[in-house]
Amino acid sequence: MAQNTRTVASNALGWQAQRAPGMPPLVEQLVQHCLQLLHHHSLRAGTRLPSVRELSDSAGVSRDTVVQAYDRLVAQGVAHSRPGAGFFVSAQRSPHLVQTGKSLKTPILSADAAFDTPFLLRSMFRPTEGTQLDGSTGILPANWMDHDMLNAAVRSVGRSAGVQLLGYGAPQGYAPLRQQLSAHLLAQGLTVDPEQELMTVTGVTQGMDLVLRSTLRPGDTVLVEDPTWFMVFGMLRALGVQMLAVPRLRDGPDLAVLEHLAATHRPKMFITNTVVHNPTGFGLSLPVAYDVLRLAEQHDFLVLEDDTYADFAPQHPMRLSTLDRLRRVILLGGFSKTLAGSLRVGYIAAKPERIRALTDAKLLSGLTSPELGERVVHRILADGQYRKHVLRLRERLDETRHRCLKMVESMGLKVHQEPLAGMFVWVDAQQDTEVLARKAAAQGVLLAPGVLFSANQQPSTMLRLPVSMVDETAGCQKMALLLRQIAKSN
Amino acid sequence: MAQNTRTVASNALGWQAQRAPGMPPLVEQLVQHCLQLLHHHSLRAGTRLPSVRELSDSAGVSRDTVVQAYDRLVAQGVAHSRPGAGFFVSAQRSPHLVQTGKSLKTPILSADAAFDTPFLLRSMFRPTEGTQLDGSTGILPANWMDHDMLNAAVRSVGRSAGVQLLGYGAPQGYAPLRQQLSAHLLAQGLTVDPEQELMTVTGVTQGMDLVLRSTLRPGDTVLVEDPTWFMVFGMLRALGVQMLAVPRLRDGPDLAVLEHLAATHRPKMFITNTVVHNPTGFGLSLPVAYDVLRLAEQHDFLVLEDDTYADFAPQHPMRLSTLDRLRRVILLGGFSKTLAGSLRVGYIAAKPERIRALTDAKLLSGLTSPELGERVVHRILADGQYRKHVLRLRERLDETRHRCLKMVESMGLKVHQEPLAGMFVWVDAQQDTEVLARKAAAQGVLLAPGVLFSANQQPSTMLRLPVSMVDETAGCQKMALLLRQIAKSN
Repeated sequence: MAQNTRTVASNALGWQAQRAPGMPPLVEQLVQHCLQLLHHHSLRAGTRLPSVRELSDSAGVSRDTVVQAYDRLVAQGVAHSRPGAGFFVSAQRSPHLVQTGKSLKTPILSADAAFDTPFLLRSMFRPTEGTQLDGSTGILPANWMDHDMLNAAVRSVGRSAGVQLLGYGAPQGYAPLRQQLSAHLLAQGLTVDPEQELMTVTGVTQGMDLVLRSTLRPGDTVLVEDPTWFMVFGMLRALGVQMLAVPRLRDGPDLAVLEHLAATHRPKMFITNTVVHNPTGFGLSLPVAYDVLRLAEQHDFLVLEDDTYADFAPQHPMRLSTLDRLRRVILLGGFSKTLAGSLRVGYIAAKPERIRALTDAKLLSGLTSPELGERVVHRILADGQYRKHVLRLRERLDETRHRCLKMVESMGLKVHQEPLAGMFVWVDAQQDTEVLARKAAAQGVLLAPGVLFSANQQPSTMLRLPVSMVDETAGCQKMALLLRQIAKSN
Repeated sequence: MAQNTRTVASNALGWQAQRAPGMPPLVEQLVQHCLQLLHHHSLRAGTRLPSVRELSDSAGVSRDTVVQAYDRLVAQGVAHSRPGAGFFVSAQRSPHLVQTGKSLKTPILSADAAFDTPFLLRSMFRPTEGTQLDGSTGILPANWMDHDMLNAAVRSVGRSAGVQLLGYGAPQGYAPLRQQLSAHLLAQGLTVDPEQELMTVTGVTQGMDLVLRSTLRPGDTVLVEDPTWFMVFGMLRALGVQMLAVPRLRDGPDLAVLEHLAATHRPKMFITNTVVHNPTGFGLSLPVAYDVLRLAEQHDFLVLEDDTYADFAPQHPMRLSTLDRLRRVILLGGFSKTLAGSLRVGYIAAKPERIRALTDAKLLSGLTSPELGERVVHRILADGQYRKHVLRLRERLDETRHRCLKMVESMGLKVHQEPLAGMFVWVDAQQDTEVLARKAAAQGVLLAPGVLFSANQQPSTMLRLPVSMVDETAGCQKMALLLRQIAKSN
């Protein structure tokens, strides 16, 4: 190391390579050293950096190390090369590095903010600080999930994809994934031709957006359930579509209301979350399913069956798509809840002519969906790991949900009808939950009040809580305590 | 097989079940047989198909086989059932089957097919057989790209992502990628705050869709360039927006026409592809850029600058976003052309209030964009590999484009004004290129005729050719030979 010691003084950047075990690679060290100099204004705009040869000689590192480090500085915009003249420090606006995930000092909810879909969406996706607790979450805690399985599948795709990721992929989605999906759906009792009746989408939400955009026109009427996943309202409103609400009962939609609205308003579509309904956790009985389809036939409306929570369902749940065999039903599903939200892999199952039209619509609104994530999901499904993973999740959910229900009742919150399955409980706080949510927000807890799930945004005493709030993590317990306090103050 | 032989005569459809090993399942055979009859008009619309019992008896197959086959015909839209009356042949648009990935026996282009955006989109993404050559391609040959770099980045993400892929990610996109993008844009002379002025999208196409959907209403007027990337027309048409075309000259849009249309039609937006314009390869001069922005200011329209081919530009290209600093210009870019189409990673740069609105629109139409691909792109940008890779691509493109121009002229095709850069040449075939494209299609070569790039779909003698057609791969040379032949036959 004598050589390194010698070079310190003569090295124009004052950089000393650290070769001890455990130190970062030399390239990384040099980059960080330069960024430090820039940050402290020891390197100013326009300054010529030492030549590659000069620095490599003086610092006793290979030329390749210097070239790689300079390339990274160029990539980061802090340096640039002038052909024949070398590398120069670039003029900096400000050495402002993105500090996402921290320093978000703005409050969760400003006093005048509306509890509408865009608000909740923005809130849901805010990076949370340690002090903020998310009782409005729609995903399971990270420690319930299997990130090792996920990352191993990513690496495996990186090892095996070869040149195949270079193109745009297939408009209907990665064909082997469609094969796996077809098998997956067959296990649920639905026969789907992967070539003609399936397409992938960038998550259930994009799938719903595609279906709604290519089916509905402004002024059309659509029936929705009450309560319903709030995204549906935001999407329909954006399309200028009239929504009519059908109360959701424990075994399906209220048939009397459905029939009346269908007869009087000629709706184009009924959007329903049959299996593990969000937010109630309710299901669908066979006779109700039959009557829904009978009414759809009689009044000629489409049924969009959102099956986001399919894999949390108890054994042999009833689905409209299974009964109808995709004649009138369009099925949406995905893997955000069971694998990872950031993968954005979902699918649409529908009859061939609909899939053809939806594939055209998909191409026109964004070409293909990213094959990388589709290959990762395919790998996990094909390896047979998915089934076991989901089984574990379901068992844990069932156990946690029972504890959550007990806790919720011990707080004086009412659960009118128990959920059959799923990750939420839909509780009656016996006070306006929008007011309650504002109180909670002031204390750093984000809640999902009933008004969000109501098509006509009526004040509501209901609240959707994630069952994982009783999980043994400090954050969740803190939230539960806070909620108890708030409930008591009622 | 005596039974089968017997049934041929008496079988109303003339179908004989083939039970030899290696034959397709009987259901499939019956379906294909019916499709053949339909194709040859031996079965006409309205004809009643033999009853299930009748056909099952006469063909010596189970009733279930017939039921399944009929169901598939119904699913394919070529037959329908009338309760109590049986199955009937449906009125056909055309018996076009989507046979993704296999048995593409149908010609590329049927005689009556329109050369419209959906057609070209479907064609572009068709899996090509060995005998089919794609002269309409919008991507570089796979052997020009660096799949090792891509796959190594995928594996690296799989090693380092930990639990971070589990959530939905950030609505504006992966923050470190936005930081890299900001540096990347800074190197192009554009200062962009990665926190407030940047968001990721699932490719440039989705970015354009988001901008158009959240800015335009049916009946609005939008100015487009003539010629223009054909997707723009498809998108605007789907939104019910009126398009007016501004001729594209070598140094930018025709200012006289732009001014006249702006003054007389009050357009909401001008969509332009300033740097390495598709399909011409033209650029933008500083004075024209200035006048475009002056007109935008004066007539109060937005400018959507599609920078898909940014990284193929010569040094220091002129951009509207750079001049205007995102006040009135919305910039779209991505990595489909330089890294991989299937990653679907793009970005929008715009002023903060637009990014906020577009982020809300993004959430509402599909939540976040997949973080996996964004991490892969980030990795490649951060490592400094991207710059070198792009430099190599650009050099190869420049060299190839010169050879292509020579070859094209040797064929008797005219290039009125040479492209400045990029992967296409825009040539005058001196004959209706739609006719030419149909001739080429009959010989297995897909071409992109000028009509596709025209807002009002005027007949055109222009043709967009990929410069890589002169590349040393058998396929491309074959295409060039064929093209020469076709040109000669003129």
